[in-house]
Amino acid sequence: MAYRVPGFRAAGIRCGIKRSGALDLALIVSDRPAVAAGVFTRNRVPGAPITVSRAHLRGGRAQAIVVNSGISNVAMGASGLRDARRMTELTGVELGLRAVDVLVSSTGVIGRALPMPRIAAGIPRAVRALSATGWSAASRAILTTDTRPKLAQARVSGASLLGIAKGSGMTMPDMATMLAFVVTDLAVDPGFLRQALRQAVGETFNRLSIDGETSTSDSVVLLANGAAGNRPLGPRSARAKEFERVLLDLCRELTEKLAADGEGASRVAEIVVTGTRTDTLAERAARKIANSLLVKTALFGADPNWGRVVQTVGAAGVPFKPEDLGVRIGGVQLLQRGTPVGGASALRRARRAMHKKRVEIAVSLGRGRGSARVTSCDLSYEYVRINAEYTT
Amino acid sequence: MAYRVPGFRAAGIRCGIKRSGALDLALIVSDRPAVAAGVFTRNRVPGAPITVSRAHLRGGRAQAIVVNSGISNVAMGASGLRDARRMTELTGVELGLRAVDVLVSSTGVIGRALPMPRIAAGIPRAVRALSATGWSAASRAILTTDTRPKLAQARVSGASLLGIAKGSGMTMPDMATMLAFVVTDLAVDPGFLRQALRQAVGETFNRLSIDGETSTSDSVVLLANGAAGNRPLGPRSARAKEFERVLLDLCRELTEKLAADGEGASRVAEIVVTGTRTDTLAERAARKIANSLLVKTALFGADPNWGRVVQTVGAAGVPFKPEDLGVRIGGVQLLQRGTPVGGASALRRARRAMHKKRVEIAVSLGRGRGSARVTSCDLSYEYVRINAEYTT
Repeated sequence: MAYRVPGFRAAGIRCGIKRSGALDLALIVSDRPAVAAGVFTRNRVPGAPITVSRAHLRGGRAQAIVVNSGISNVAMGASGLRDARRMTELTGVELGLRAVDVLVSSTGVIGRALPMPRIAAGIPRAVRALSATGWSAASRAILTTDTRPKLAQARVSGASLLGIAKGSGMTMPDMATMLAFVVTDLAVDPGFLRQALRQAVGETFNRLSIDGETSTSDSVVLLANGAAGNRPLGPRSARAKEFERVLLDLCRELTEKLAADGEGASRVAEIVVTGTRTDTLAERAARKIANSLLVKTALFGADPNWGRVVQTVGAAGVPFKPEDLGVRIGGVQLLQRGTPVGGASALRRARRAMHKKRVEIAVSLGRGRGSARVTSCDLSYEYVRINAEYTT
Repeated sequence: MAYRVPGFRAAGIRCGIKRSGALDLALIVSDRPAVAAGVFTRNRVPGAPITVSRAHLRGGRAQAIVVNSGISNVAMGASGLRDARRMTELTGVELGLRAVDVLVSSTGVIGRALPMPRIAAGIPRAVRALSATGWSAASRAILTTDTRPKLAQARVSGASLLGIAKGSGMTMPDMATMLAFVVTDLAVDPGFLRQALRQAVGETFNRLSIDGETSTSDSVVLLANGAAGNRPLGPRSARAKEFERVLLDLCRELTEKLAADGEGASRVAEIVVTGTRTDTLAERAARKIANSLLVKTALFGADPNWGRVVQTVGAAGVPFKPEDLGVRIGGVQLLQRGTPVGGASALRRARRAMHKKRVEIAVSLGRGRGSARVTSCDLSYEYVRINAEYTT
């Protein structure tokens, strides 16, 4: 399948940031000004590119995105901000745009200065490499420890939606900054674009829990350039719902590709919590379970250890009565109304289910109709090895 | 040193709960009614013994504590409650006490029924084994995966304070329920005893973070039997401060013994956060750092990865400005006013410091005089192995 969207070009090149010589500079450009929306990390130490991109997005428009991988421009003080601004200026000069029309993003090791001469030499080459079919190269140039690129494409209202993402399941969470860039040739109202993106991100990327950490650089950006020539979509447009749904599905597809990238060495868990008063309470409990070291190591060992789930949900700060609590692992009921059920045979069946690559852990709290689903993965030797051996 | 406190006897015996044949039933008895206070887990699925002990403590008095190890009486529904009550009844009958004068505690694997016939046969033997010097046996009978018993003793106002505790650093957090039992022959007002205990626990046991989990059975109980014949200590007594201080020191000594029990395979970290508006905010940030998988794996790898500390504190929900942030690891300043300092030589010195058994990670946020200290430990292969291989 050829990935392309009318009016957009992309490129991915080597500019020498990664010692491995892999692609490390990506560029996405619209041939006309595009309506733009972004959702960024809530970390209080956001990377300098986030500060710059947030400012540039204030007008709700953008025309290009420049991304480097290998080194993340975070916690470098004033020089980091200078470097991030410089990347937008250099890109603007090459493309004949103002710096404020360019967004910037960065992912990789924290605490090293960007090699600006290499980036300055790389940007003109990236501009020359731009093409309507450059998405595959761009999707590879934003990766850090991912084992494969992540792209997704969909049709919506006779137009296109295309997204690329990076972030590896569990393989190297130190650099598991999650980045996603989505473009469409539809015309969309700025306010509606923001709202649709925020909603889609809330239900997809933000529900992926690898190790409970929040990166300093997580970003999702959406550009809509209107090349399709439609009347701009607004919240009351006939096709507003369709756009929201297709955007949500595309973000979900990218999220699943993120989760699956750790699968080779591990196991993905879907944590489903039901029976809370509100969805927010269910999400809180699901996240607590998703992040529990004891649940994660039980997943790695394929151990249907419902006691750990009980202990974790009990400490989640979510109201319930122990006698209402139910736990199912891999579809097998192990705890019902606060009491163990099914005996040794149920444990055997649950253990078999846990040997699969994908396991559901379902917890019911018996208090209402609130529910939530969070995607998690196990904690393996590999996680410890990579994160312990990796040195600054 | 002989551990003993006037008016108290203790015992630890084998009653056959642990397959290993190790001591698994402990008994602590005062020769007269004692003023009693307890601090228990805030987990919403507390073990049945916690429910029973909380009820028995309502009058502020107790005379005996019976503890089993090997199986933790948690999430067993009504039968679990029956078993916990039965343990207090059986102990009461043997000692000539009412059940309500007896507290009960339990630690070990979750999700199995207690072997009540063995416990019923064990309790009379434990009563016969009681002696003024039985503390060493009692301290061993409450252990699960600890590698050594933990006892501490102090003199206060011409009387004695003695405590035993269990809970192993990182070696098996599934069963790392933290239990501590402290006795004194001083006479103390019930209200003052409660307040002093709560304060000491808040600054010691509650500041120990192994893996961010809250056990369903954590308990600290303090008995004061008045055998010293003093006028009961109250908050305005001349010696109130001295009592509070000695109790705090004793709890700190036991906490350090808990943290050190994982040291053989690992490393202990003291997380110190300063410069928040309140101590509570500092504690929140310190806990977040203490529980971070990325910080814990960096500790294991002796990697002075200050970027992970920055990322974690940025996600702690504690206000600060990135440009005020400072990070010191092992006494070496690596980040100052939001900018890396010291270069490669500072990183080398920090790395050397991290190879020690005890590392301090100090974070300053530049907002005020709030501060907090939390004890943590690293995340090693051993943690994953034990918790993945352990099966229900």
